[in-house]
Amino acid sequence: MKHLFTLCTMMLLTIINSNAQDLFANQRNAWLQKAEEAKPALHETIVHPQSIVRAVADKNAYQGWRFEKQDEIEKLYTTNFKELKTVTVDFGKHLTGYFSFHTRILTNCEDAPVRLKFTFAETPAELNTPFDPWKGSLSRAWMQDETITLTRLNETVSIPRRIAFRYLKIELLGSSAYYDFAIDNLTFRAVSSAGDVKTNLQPQCPPIVQDIHRVAIETLRECMQTVYEDGPKRDQRLWVGDLYLEALANRYSFQNFQLTKRCLYLFAGLSDENGVVIANIFEHPEPHPQKGQLCLTYSMLFNSTLLEYLKDTNDYETAHDLWCVARRQMEYALNYVNKDYLFDPNQYVSNWFFLDWRDGLDAHTPMQGAILFALSQSYELAQMLGKEKEVSEWPRIANRMKKAARRHLYDKQQKVFVSGANRQVSVLSQAWMIIGEVTTEKEGREAIQQVLTNEQSVMPGTPYGTHYLIEAMVRCGMHQEARSYLTEYWGGMVKKGADTFWEAYDPKNDFISPYGFFPVNSACHAWSCTPVYFIHKYPETFQR
Amino acid sequence: MKHLFTLCTMMLLTIINSNAQDLFANQRNAWLQKAEEAKPALHETIVHPQSIVRAVADKNAYQGWRFEKQDEIEKLYTTNFKELKTVTVDFGKHLTGYFSFHTRILTNCEDAPVRLKFTFAETPAELNTPFDPWKGSLSRAWMQDETITLTRLNETVSIPRRIAFRYLKIELLGSSAYYDFAIDNLTFRAVSSAGDVKTNLQPQCPPIVQDIHRVAIETLRECMQTVYEDGPKRDQRLWVGDLYLEALANRYSFQNFQLTKRCLYLFAGLSDENGVVIANIFEHPEPHPQKGQLCLTYSMLFNSTLLEYLKDTNDYETAHDLWCVARRQMEYALNYVNKDYLFDPNQYVSNWFFLDWRDGLDAHTPMQGAILFALSQSYELAQMLGKEKEVSEWPRIANRMKKAARRHLYDKQQKVFVSGANRQVSVLSQAWMIIGEVTTEKEGREAIQQVLTNEQSVMPGTPYGTHYLIEAMVRCGMHQEARSYLTEYWGGMVKKGADTFWEAYDPKNDFISPYGFFPVNSACHAWSCTPVYFIHKYPETFQR
Repeated sequence: MKHLFTLCTMMLLTIINSNAQDLFANQRNAWLQKAEEAKPALHETIVHPQSIVRAVADKNAYQGWRFEKQDEIEKLYTTNFKELKTVTVDFGKHLTGYFSFHTRILTNCEDAPVRLKFTFAETPAELNTPFDPWKGSLSRAWMQDETITLTRLNETVSIPRRIAFRYLKIELLGSSAYYDFAIDNLTFRAVSSAGDVKTNLQPQCPPIVQDIHRVAIETLRECMQTVYEDGPKRDQRLWVGDLYLEALANRYSFQNFQLTKRCLYLFAGLSDENGVVIANIFEHPEPHPQKGQLCLTYSMLFNSTLLEYLKDTNDYETAHDLWCVARRQMEYALNYVNKDYLFDPNQYVSNWFFLDWRDGLDAHTPMQGAILFALSQSYELAQMLGKEKEVSEWPRIANRMKKAARRHLYDKQQKVFVSGANRQVSVLSQAWMIIGEVTTEKEGREAIQQVLTNEQSVMPGTPYGTHYLIEAMVRCGMHQEARSYLTEYWGGMVKKGADTFWEAYDPKNDFISPYGFFPVNSACHAWSCTPVYFIHKYPETFQR
Repeated sequence: MKHLFTLCTMMLLTIINSNAQDLFANQRNAWLQKAEEAKPALHETIVHPQSIVRAVADKNAYQGWRFEKQDEIEKLYTTNFKELKTVTVDFGKHLTGYFSFHTRILTNCEDAPVRLKFTFAETPAELNTPFDPWKGSLSRAWMQDETITLTRLNETVSIPRRIAFRYLKIELLGSSAYYDFAIDNLTFRAVSSAGDVKTNLQPQCPPIVQDIHRVAIETLRECMQTVYEDGPKRDQRLWVGDLYLEALANRYSFQNFQLTKRCLYLFAGLSDENGVVIANIFEHPEPHPQKGQLCLTYSMLFNSTLLEYLKDTNDYETAHDLWCVARRQMEYALNYVNKDYLFDPNQYVSNWFFLDWRDGLDAHTPMQGAILFALSQSYELAQMLGKEKEVSEWPRIANRMKKAARRHLYDKQQKVFVSGANRQVSVLSQAWMIIGEVTTEKEGREAIQQVLTNEQSVMPGTPYGTHYLIEAMVRCGMHQEARSYLTEYWGGMVKKGADTFWEAYDPKNDFISPYGFFPVNSACHAWSCTPVYFIHKYPETFQR
């Protein structure tokens, strides 16, 4: 049992490391330096609003609200704002960057300050739902409403924080009776490191797929900043899980592989003392991880990202440089495999087995598949780098895990994989068993068909989980079904007015939120951009 | 009737000026340049809060609220602010300037922004009265509550607007569940151009007078910035009426006569096309008047200020330079004297006859006195400058106006002066008749005694009006009464906890406000600082 030997080595290492030994002490600085060198410049675009819009409560609209055009933008720029009092403008598309405006005194002179409230929102309902009293589980401060006291008019004022939005509401909270003023020159300096799209769709690509592709491209563009962010409104940071999916989409769009390289080096340089890649990273004031945020699914995806990066770039130098990190992730993951070759969450340190935002989703069976996928991807990387001898036990462990999965997790009667003590039937259990190559193609198809027709099945709650369902469908030959599912799911967002794809989407519940209050959801979320990847990787399936 | 000739000249001048001729076109730039050269540097003092305080609703406290000490300030600096949620701190005294604070992460790392609300207030009730829905007639934006989104912690943050306050409430509006932080290093950079006090009270000066003197000095100090402001919280600008009273108090305290010179030159340089001094001036972005804000009482007080400045400094150069402006104010004021030698507000252009904030106060009789006072002061100035021949008609006009006042405005039966068609009996009618030298000392005393004992009399509503009452009392020999009134009125504010003297004060109504909502009142107002002047000018009366 070679991998139990690995476990013992690992335990020993843990003990050593509790004496503050740092596995990658000698490499970190060089890795972080390479990350810094790969930091991209941001492209800037100046954007002005297109029109004044009016909010319309409409139960047929997504989340109950839509906007319709009310006036030309010039009306705002030329009318006494004390008459307008509240104005909402539409910038026409989702933007990430920095906002400024100007004020202009129309009559008399300024004898008192002005108080204005600016509320920026990604979606119509976000702008029309009162934020307070706050019901979300995340910080209220993510919401983009800023109250500003202007002590000087006739000046340009910038809001310091970075904003991600399409719609802006301006409200007058205080002014003087003794002079009139207008608000003009609303200006947005949009930023992204993405650059130009370097790929094309086939001319005959169906309109709905073209629409999905366009929205997915915009989603990715907005998330590509000085790292791949998860969401430019919220959380504005680099997560491994998002990085992997963004890197896949980037291959088929912007092809900004330097950004992928930067992120890989950041995760390597900021791995913990045991060499485990931490789930997410902040850039300011200097790059640092969210300490203690260990997510096994994500640390394993570091390896997949490195593998795909190598395939995209043939940058063997980077791959060799970071191979030790990849090997370490796999060694660490195998700690969570018990003597029966089954995933066991109760081992060693606390960890997070994130697969999707869906209340009650059991992680046991999906994680078995996720570890198998990691073993397969990591071994492929080892082979490309000529390192397979270092990890010769991995294929055998994978085989044992597959057999254990078939023996313990498969319900032959239902023809589905079940998960956990309550034998939960979920879509993601089937998806990860397929991706982990536990099933035959036929078994995979049967399992997917079973769960998708069973109303009791636990469904994915987000485009993140749904990505792995589509991936599984394609892998087991369900091309037509994958195409239908993708166009219905992501196309559903397009039909509901998405400018960028949302963090959380349940076709049956417009108000789904992982955080207790839908306005704090990110409406432009990296992990939702993967139609770009599917549409280009499988053109026969998606572009016809 | 020489002065009717003056009126005709004036009317002709108005016609000429409607063709955009500018009376002082050739002098303005030089005057404004001299104002700029006299601009003072601001002295800076770094102040930190003294303690954490708790608000106590107390019907015996001024406006129903007081603070008591709750904790040492260190508790704020060392405690997770998510536990504290709301904290009020006391800086120990009224301060004007710029606020900054620092945040410090206590546990984990920043994964989300923080939303904080800072409310600065001059008085306890201001901090404990909700501002919204706004009931004031002035801009809501005068209130000093600022909501701030911190996207980076562990940094020092400054609030850009200038603040005038003693108390600060900090409220947590949004934070992350995943890290703790403290707010520390609350720092205030207090600014004033006043400098050091150059005078002393006599050792035997009674404690209440010492207290009044101390509070008046602080009031003046806070209002002395790059101009004499009326109030550092609100309106933050230079008014002639405040300038005059501040200059009187400055003579007996900071003796910063350069500041007075600067303000005189600003008013001269920014007078209107007809050479009339406009009531108030703003400094930013460059000095400019509030156009159309003509206040006859104030434009006349330009002359008194120039006279007092000359007496203080013997700066004959400035006085000669500005004599033409002073003469012009008097000529302009005489337009409001009719053929019966009575003040007549219905002449020529719209104007404002500000005497006090007191609803319903009739201006006729006080204005008669105010013009007489201006004639006397302006003629004294002419004499000092050897210009009396230019204005030889003024003494005769004054005599006629005094006679007219005695004939038409004096109610011999009641032994008081009455004002307007409804024969209103007000304190300020008597005060201005005395200051205008219409009465004998004895008549003045009788009139003041009458109105102060008659409950139907219209009382002053502010320390501004009350200043002229005290002045009148002293002028007609009511030393003991002046002392009692001053110590009761200003001492009443001291006993109610004033750190600086208030814009509006009625001993019988703590909530008096000229603007419909007491929190927008200025609690540090220049025109309330004149006890400094009385206490030093009449030491036998006030310091014994």
